[in-house]
Amino acid sequence: MRKSWKSFLLVSLFLAVSSVLAFGCASQITPSPRTAATIPEGALDSETWGKVYPDQYASQNKQKEMTKGNSKYGGSLPESHLEKYPIEKRLFAGYGFSEDYNDERGHVYALEDVTTTLRVNEKTISSCWNCKSPQVPGSIEQMGDDFWSTPFLQLKDQITMPIACADCHDPETMNLRITRVTLLNALKERGIDPNQLSRQEMRTMVCAQCHVEYYFEPETKRVTYPWKYGLTANDAEKYYEEINFKDWNHAETGAPMLKAQHPDYELFSTGVHAANGVACADCHMPYVKEGTSKISSHHLQSPLNSISESCQTCHRQSEEYLKNQVITTQDKVFATRTVLENALADAMDAIKAADKNATAKADAMSKARDLHRKAQWRWDYIAAENSMGFHSPNEALRVLGEGIDFARQAQLQANLAVSTAAGGAANPDAGQTPGAGTANEASGGATPLPDNKNNDKKPTD
Amino acid sequence: MRKSWKSFLLVSLFLAVSSVLAFGCASQITPSPRTAATIPEGALDSETWGKVYPDQYASQNKQKEMTKGNSKYGGSLPESHLEKYPIEKRLFAGYGFSEDYNDERGHVYALEDVTTTLRVNEKTISSCWNCKSPQVPGSIEQMGDDFWSTPFLQLKDQITMPIACADCHDPETMNLRITRVTLLNALKERGIDPNQLSRQEMRTMVCAQCHVEYYFEPETKRVTYPWKYGLTANDAEKYYEEINFKDWNHAETGAPMLKAQHPDYELFSTGVHAANGVACADCHMPYVKEGTSKISSHHLQSPLNSISESCQTCHRQSEEYLKNQVITTQDKVFATRTVLENALADAMDAIKAADKNATAKADAMSKARDLHRKAQWRWDYIAAENSMGFHSPNEALRVLGEGIDFARQAQLQANLAVSTAAGGAANPDAGQTPGAGTANEASGGATPLPDNKNNDKKPTD
Repeated sequence: MRKSWKSFLLVSLFLAVSSVLAFGCASQITPSPRTAATIPEGALDSETWGKVYPDQYASQNKQKEMTKGNSKYGGSLPESHLEKYPIEKRLFAGYGFSEDYNDERGHVYALEDVTTTLRVNEKTISSCWNCKSPQVPGSIEQMGDDFWSTPFLQLKDQITMPIACADCHDPETMNLRITRVTLLNALKERGIDPNQLSRQEMRTMVCAQCHVEYYFEPETKRVTYPWKYGLTANDAEKYYEEINFKDWNHAETGAPMLKAQHPDYELFSTGVHAANGVACADCHMPYVKEGTSKISSHHLQSPLNSISESCQTCHRQSEEYLKNQVITTQDKVFATRTVLENALADAMDAIKAADKNATAKADAMSKARDLHRKAQWRWDYIAAENSMGFHSPNEALRVLGEGIDFARQAQLQANLAVSTAAGGAANPDAGQTPGAGTANEASGGATPLPDNKNNDKKPTD
Repeated sequence: MRKSWKSFLLVSLFLAVSSVLAFGCASQITPSPRTAATIPEGALDSETWGKVYPDQYASQNKQKEMTKGNSKYGGSLPESHLEKYPIEKRLFAGYGFSEDYNDERGHVYALEDVTTTLRVNEKTISSCWNCKSPQVPGSIEQMGDDFWSTPFLQLKDQITMPIACADCHDPETMNLRITRVTLLNALKERGIDPNQLSRQEMRTMVCAQCHVEYYFEPETKRVTYPWKYGLTANDAEKYYEEINFKDWNHAETGAPMLKAQHPDYELFSTGVHAANGVACADCHMPYVKEGTSKISSHHLQSPLNSISESCQTCHRQSEEYLKNQVITTQDKVFATRTVLENALADAMDAIKAADKNATAKADAMSKARDLHRKAQWRWDYIAAENSMGFHSPNEALRVLGEGIDFARQAQLQANLAVSTAAGGAANPDAGQTPGAGTANEASGGATPLPDNKNNDKKPTD
């Protein structure tokens, strides 16, 4: 009797502990069983690898689905930015993105999408292949730095496979590996030895090969990440200022613009998940049942479509709560991004109008254009990033706040360039120093005491 | 042998489960032992209650400490806002807060501080006593609504005890209770029955008696919470607009201003801690050892000074990580608040300058003043709130972002009021509709294709 009571307690306690452990954050995933076959030497296409790893291959093929899923702002539909947010036609005026700009689909479509976008033409260079195919590292090995400036269309026949297993995995050991020299160079510049990265760090770094901001280094046209000063929007801007870089001249305002790519890794790096050692793969490649085994999913979609596997391994709240928390956060970022869009539209209007005026002061116009560049860089950094700010909401909102300030200051400068202030009262110096202003200068002397006849005041607290 | 192995396992598992439970989020706290004595009927001072609850009283007396502690932005020192942030002298020009505005000290100093601030004079009304003493509810019971408009100084002899146990506790049952009719009225308006609030909800609501935004209802001068439309800065503004309320006219710009009080409860309500059922007391009144017992601390300080007791009951990261997470978040809010301050300074300069001009367009000046009011309301809502945004960082940053937009638009309107745009090019309509702008209007027709000679472009991705 006493013994069976003890056994019961023992089993209960064991179950309790097991379930607690099961709810803990599991970042180490045991590899799923593989078939006896091996990957033929030099094979780069997912289909061949898929014969050895059929479950991973099956999950990767789910990338073909095109759906909004549980996302409010994301999803895998190739929705047109320009139709959803018509202001983007203006924001990118004079640049290819004002002609054709769609939301990204899954990796399996990478090659189809890069070869059919209207942004590619006979002047496009091979740098644009960098992230689209596992055949790229081999081409670079053959061609050296000549690869980058080679006409894009010239390599069309030899680059035929979209993003695949080989982009992130070693064919023999299946270990994660960095195949892109562009990331290796960037890590080297930051003093990071890629061979010292832990497996958990690699579960982010294989994504950071491509989900980053980049530019084409002017001499070689090599894809380069602007990480010299750090990973924030401000750090990248500082670097671009230093090398006097622009992507294009804005067709409406003439401002020397920067186009942000998709700084997913950089924004993520500033957020709370990164601070806790969470990797991209923890949320985007959760452990799921596929076929007969448990594998790390290669579907690579919004974690909103796999809340139980992606979020609830660490967060114990309900799916409904977690989804709502994500969407509410994104709503705030979207609202603030919209405030910035409106300010940018007004700034472009003001610069365009002032430009028509032959007497517009060149100095003020130059400041207005620089402020347009700064403001739109901040808008684009958050708008081009693939999480509507969720990868680091506080940082996204901070960046957008700065952008609003710069956009309105662009408008102020353009107005001042053409205004004749009556009586010199129009405060011509205001807004000259972006982000500086006159704060922390006390107004001289004491301010008058309030006219305190009215007890509606609430002066004590 | 087999039995002793089982016993060992049993004990180990029991310890494991116990320690896991100890790390869980404990919101239910068992009351500490009390002495046999009871609280004399009608006693309101903490000293008398402290004879029955000596440990709670001892912890409450720690409020006398004045220290920065681990805070970067908070602490219990009566630091002068006007010295730390001289721009606040300008922001509150024409109002008492530009004369005397110190950081709050502990509750035990409430009476001393309210009676010595320069903001109180012979015109101050008794509404200002509302949150300062446990004797207030009795006075209101005696005097009815006459209490509020009675001169403050007239009640100075009968209000002699600072905030005390009786403000939140029933003397017989020691249950939490709402003693302020001001909160009871506000809850009623929101359709909340105070008798239906759970103990956990009461652990927030006793704080929400006073740590809220309020105004003096013009007719009776009764302290009133502007919660008709909800708990955000925008909701309160909507209410103040509806009743055409202002606290004062700004001495520099003439704008009809709102002063935010300390909307700690409201901002907290929009945040992630509130969404998870965390109460004010969970962080600010953690369970601590005091004397011979474990009690809920009545020190009421920054949780940064009690990270292990306040944060680590739920968050398993290190103290260093947690402190850094809080400060980093606050740094972003402070940086964005500073951007808004600078924009407000420029707006005030522009309005002041334009005001000197007899030909300034009245319509534009009126818009500029309204925008100053809107912008500064958002600045103050976050600046007067006691967490440098930490109670709800995303919301704080969203509100500040709107404020930056409004402040720069105020500057634009003031400039336009006095400028004669050469050639009509100065975009006179820009900034007319706060928050509306021209976004989502596509520029007419197709934008020109880029001059794509230069392959520095990165047009494909």
